[in-house]
Amino acid sequence: MERPRHQGMAKNTYMRWRLPLVCLLWEVAMIVLFGVFVRFSPEADAHWEEEKREMNLTSDIENDFYFRYPSFQDVHVMIFVGFGFLMTFLKRYGFGAVGFNFLLAAFGIQWALLMQGWFHSFKSGKILIGVENLINADFCVGSVCIAFGAILGKTSPIQLLVMTLFQVTLFAVNEYILLNLLHVKDAGGSMTIHTFGAYFGLMVTRILYRPNLEQSKDKQGSVYHSDLFAMIGTLYLWMYWPSFNSAISEHGDAQHRAAINTYCSLAACVLTTMAFSSMLQKKGKLDMVHIQNATLAGGVAVGTSAEMMLTPYGSLIVGFICGIVSTVGYVYLTPFLESRLHIQDTCGIHNLHAMPGLIGGIVGAITAAAATEDIYGKEGFIKAFDFTGTYKTRTPSVQGGFQAAGIVVSLLMALAGGALVGAILKLPVWGDAAAENCFEDDIYWEVPEDEESDVYHMHNPDKPASP
Amino acid sequence: MERPRHQGMAKNTYMRWRLPLVCLLWEVAMIVLFGVFVRFSPEADAHWEEEKREMNLTSDIENDFYFRYPSFQDVHVMIFVGFGFLMTFLKRYGFGAVGFNFLLAAFGIQWALLMQGWFHSFKSGKILIGVENLINADFCVGSVCIAFGAILGKTSPIQLLVMTLFQVTLFAVNEYILLNLLHVKDAGGSMTIHTFGAYFGLMVTRILYRPNLEQSKDKQGSVYHSDLFAMIGTLYLWMYWPSFNSAISEHGDAQHRAAINTYCSLAACVLTTMAFSSMLQKKGKLDMVHIQNATLAGGVAVGTSAEMMLTPYGSLIVGFICGIVSTVGYVYLTPFLESRLHIQDTCGIHNLHAMPGLIGGIVGAITAAAATEDIYGKEGFIKAFDFTGTYKTRTPSVQGGFQAAGIVVSLLMALAGGALVGAILKLPVWGDAAAENCFEDDIYWEVPEDEESDVYHMHNPDKPASP
Amino acid sequence: MERPRHQGMAKNTYMRWRLPLVCLLWEVAMIVLFGVFVRFSPEADAHWEEEKREMNLTSDIENDFYFRYPSFQDVHVMIFVGFGFLMTFLKRYGFGAVGFNFLLAAFGIQWALLMQGWFHSFKSGKILIGVENLINADFCVGSVCIAFGAILGKTSPIQLLVMTLFQVTLFAVNEYILLNLLHVKDAGGSMTIHTFGAYFGLMVTRILYRPNLEQSKDKQGSVYHSDLFAMIGTLYLWMYWPSFNSAISEHGDAQHRAAINTYCSLAACVLTTMAFSSMLQKKGKLDMVHIQNATLAGGVAVGTSAEMMLTPYGSLIVGFICGIVSTVGYVYLTPFLESRLHIQDTCGIHNLHAMPGLIGGIVGAITAAAATEDIYGKEGFIKAFDFTGTYKTRTPSVQGGFQAAGIVVSLLMALAGGALVGAILKLPVWGDAAAENCFEDDIYWEVPEDEESDVYHMHNPDKPASP
Repeated sequence: MERPRHQGMAKNTYMRWRLPLVCLLWEVAMIVLFGVFVRFSPEADAHWEEEKREMNLTSDIENDFYFRYPSFQDVHVMIFVGFGFLMTFLKRYGFGAVGFNFLLAAFGIQWALLMQGWFHSFKSGKILIGVENLINADFCVGSVCIAFGAILGKTSPIQLLVMTLFQVTLFAVNEYILLNLLHVKDAGGSMTIHTFGAYFGLMVTRILYRPNLEQSKDKQGSVYHSDLFAMIGTLYLWMYWPSFNSAISEHGDAQHRAAINTYCSLAACVLTTMAFSSMLQKKGKLDMVHIQNATLAGGVAVGTSAEMMLTPYGSLIVGFICGIVSTVGYVYLTPFLESRLHIQDTCGIHNLHAMPGLIGGIVGAITAAAATEDIYGKEGFIKAFDFTGTYKTRTPSVQGGFQAAGIVVSLLMALAGGALVGAILKLPVWGDAAAENCFEDDIYWEVPEDEESDVYHMHNPDKPASP
Repeated sequence: MERPRHQGMAKNTYMRWRLPLVCLLWEVAMIVLFGVFVRFSPEADAHWEEEKREMNLTSDIENDFYFRYPSFQDVHVMIFVGFGFLMTFLKRYGFGAVGFNFLLAAFGIQWALLMQGWFHSFKSGKILIGVENLINADFCVGSVCIAFGAILGKTSPIQLLVMTLFQVTLFAVNEYILLNLLHVKDAGGSMTIHTFGAYFGLMVTRILYRPNLEQSKDKQGSVYHSDLFAMIGTLYLWMYWPSFNSAISEHGDAQHRAAINTYCSLAACVLTTMAFSSMLQKKGKLDMVHIQNATLAGGVAVGTSAEMMLTPYGSLIVGFICGIVSTVGYVYLTPFLESRLHIQDTCGIHNLHAMPGLIGGIVGAITAAAATEDIYGKEGFIKAFDFTGTYKTRTPSVQGGFQAAGIVVSLLMALAGGALVGAILKLPVWGDAAAENCFEDDIYWEVPEDEESDVYHMHNPDKPASP
Repeated sequence: MERPRHQGMAKNTYMRWRLPLVCLLWEVAMIVLFGVFVRFSPEADAHWEEEKREMNLTSDIENDFYFRYPSFQDVHVMIFVGFGFLMTFLKRYGFGAVGFNFLLAAFGIQWALLMQGWFHSFKSGKILIGVENLINADFCVGSVCIAFGAILGKTSPIQLLVMTLFQVTLFAVNEYILLNLLHVKDAGGSMTIHTFGAYFGLMVTRILYRPNLEQSKDKQGSVYHSDLFAMIGTLYLWMYWPSFNSAISEHGDAQHRAAINTYCSLAACVLTTMAFSSMLQKKGKLDMVHIQNATLAGGVAVGTSAEMMLTPYGSLIVGFICGIVSTVGYVYLTPFLESRLHIQDTCGIHNLHAMPGLIGGIVGAITAAAATEDIYGKEGFIKAFDFTGTYKTRTPSVQGGFQAAGIVVSLLMALAGGALVGAILKLPVWGDAAAENCFEDDIYWEVPEDEESDVYHMHNPDKPASP
């Protein structure tokens, strides 16, 4: 596994034929598969007038579009602007952060529409898609964006596309096991999105361990403006997280409740993040890394339970704890993981998604197990956990057990899947950069010869400041 | 009040124990109070199915969530991205602008949910919260963000939290007096949010007057990129202001109308701002400070009347005037306030919120006084001003009088409250910076040692350019 | 047409009286015209309660506001942040990009409300406006923002206002011909917005040809941070395009379908853009210009057909093709147009809007011609193409022919209009800058004397680096 110093110099990062080939072939495959399988759901199909009559709907406003489209757009912003800009904090990897995130997400949503469609929206040979499918595709891709955070700056765009292909596939399988086989509730995806995505990414980065990464250490930090760009990502994730956790909840009270719980958890999380960011630093100053990331842990951690009767104060408690756990993780755990376990986690997804995701799964299991008809009302109880049909007789404590099982399954799927995909990405054909060229846009992007490059060179006394 | 030069050097800005203590203790207090008082409103509670039957609702789409959630998210963006980024215009205070705004707003919304809840949503010992409460909490915090603009760069995060605690409290009291005792209409908050928030902040900054602030004058300006970051804030405030002014209006025509009026006012405001920005400058060039701020005055000034039958051309007139007033304010009034009245108003909130807020209150009073059954329709007239119950016999002209009283009350509450809070913040225990360290992130934030810092130092010939 | 070198030096770019005069007079004209003509639509008027009874509506949620307001806000963001920031890619023209876009759009929406109102919402002497009018006004202004892209950096704000005045007028006429006379479908505006706007702008820039523009060539590029600002614009346009194409479609399935088709087309477009961006560059690196622009072509190209039964795979195919066409255009066509046809197209709108707009018109014509009752259902077929009244007997193939005619009409209107407006803008009274001062904010804006200016000067060995 050890590579000799500077061997990387010889690495072939030339993308000219490899990247286009992958993009074009895969997109053609998408077209063929969409042509064979994908059609509009009845609510998006021109036959809707007939559907309306059949379903006894009196108004177009009953179309699911109006229940979910605003949330869909918020989620969409989270995936493309939220994750994309959150990762622009590196001083010279802004193009890669926002551009590769764009690429992998654009491919991922198509493949997710198919994979999730086969599992959940398959009717007489066709996948029927509507706005809920679009949201679920964004969710699925969210887990890839999370994993991207661990390997940010160290992989080629082709590697990212390969990872997306496999991760979306496994995501759909894992989601099917949880939602359909275990009958687990996880509307905001603490388990399916965050736990799965984060441990998947951590395993991939472990397998891709780069012993000489300190060679690009000077590029692993931020600059003043890049930290502000990253705050755009942070704030959009933070503000729209209530939409994320409520986007696919049942119409009515469940969506309403999920938004409120998430809002509360996130608010509490900001205060404990600020507190610990200051407390854990000798000079008592705040650290942008914590503010950019740990403030979001509260959203992750109510992903499973937000649509349940977690209650506002319950949400505050969850957010309170997660701000602390996440910030402490950045200060103590990330360096430990890197030095001892050889897990190089560029964005610290272990602190933002892995631990809060696990907490979210556990909180969900407890909240489910604690449910009573008294708290939910007779109908609300059945509706909240879908205790109908086969699951008519399931009790809250049994549900709690299955929820806990969902955590374990997600974790195992992520670790196994991440190991597999990491091994594939280790093949020397994908055009990743040498250790000394990591975290540098210049490898894959035309970077403008700008004034700042002069400034940049001022650090290298060997290079003349002007051409 | 005069401080000797450089005394500030000795000022203790060390936050390590003070900030965490305040954040943690207050958040624990929030959890306890939420635990005792806050529950879900019937529309967010799992008992909603029963509620629906009782209220004879046939569809989940009748849940208030679907009427207000999109507007809520727009308002949310205004508070966190809008105000946060608007204040990033300073060259070295971007972290503080967006970060402290994040901190105070995250705390403020929790405290506002409680304070406003006790006054408006208190039922059999519990505060029942739904999406409208979330919007109102954001509104309340908006007034704190406004006040923050006056003291931007000159206060510690603890001072901001203390100010938030008191200002939210007084906001809720003032709002209760206006809405419940005076039965005043103020959906977009010209009085309750802008007039109150701005004069509160101006009074605070007056009390905290720093005679030696010119020592940090070189940091009070913007740089090219920071002005672009600020434009993100401006545009989001501008675009979403129609949602702000309509967010808590009555369902149906009132929300619809409030959005249109605000849209019109804002459009007109841009043109007069541009006109006067160019006209008042000898070289005829446009000034980013005006474009970033005065273009928004039109939204402030229809805050009270937007949901009334102000009409589109009425809105244009209001916007027309406010663009002028606000721009003229930036050019002539701000320097005057600083030199003569010792009011150091970093963001010029007097021009963007105080004057337009007063104008908004007056426009609201006139529009209310001019209302007739002919213009509103019989039912619309009663609905628009809620002339029911105790207020069944109130006439438009009486309503106009009460509206005017609302302005005066808001103003007095703001000045008294601001004086009180200013005095508290003057205590030498909150860790604010010395005059020569104002407008500098370095005091409270870990700032990356970036390339630009070298550039920065190029101005100081005494310091070597490289370490 | 040839200007002697440096003649521009003497150009008078002094705006102090001209710009204010135009802004103020025109805004006064708006107020007068709004006063005479513009009132609220029944759904925004306080008489709504009566309207509701008449129309037999049982709930306020049936107000068009709730069907369209979220889409409106997304479109609003596209116009002001999307187009505004997309054009900030130039290193020293960020203020002009986002500021002038703000100015022209704020004026344009007012004038569009009037022009479109006279054609489409005129009832008994009044224009009745509601949320749909606001969307249409944004759409109309969108075509001006597109044209702005061609002349970015080369025109004065007064020229932009003059262009807006004329272009909005002609847009409304063209739109009336297409929608009312030809009975053409074009909900997302491939023809009315993109084809018209782009060829209009290209004609204007052709007439305003500047032979000595290479004098400001060093300012025509981007810098690292400006490319990231531009990505904010790109992503908001990309994410919200589904809202754009569905915003004014029929309630229900049509809106739903239009969003899905657009989403699919855009996703495919990203992959082919990335593929060709890498493939067409010798070093195989990705070019930010392509990613910022060509990724959006898929949204343009389904503007006409998105609300039809294009189907998801049909959308993928359209997006696939347009990503290629647009990227190839940037690499080969833009230089050709500049050197041979003297069309200086700053943002490459020919690649992003003109060609994809034409493709969109053609795809729309084909999709309409291929429509059958089988695909749409009996009712859906009539509803989708509004085959009622006079158009009861129109067949799909005839509709396809009219759609094609719509493309031609839009193209001719654009070229003729652009030529006329270009000629007007060529008059030497509008204060445009000399060739060597193009792409430079300094001409019209107060630009902060910032640290970066030192960096900037490092390129000029003649100037000392420090003062």
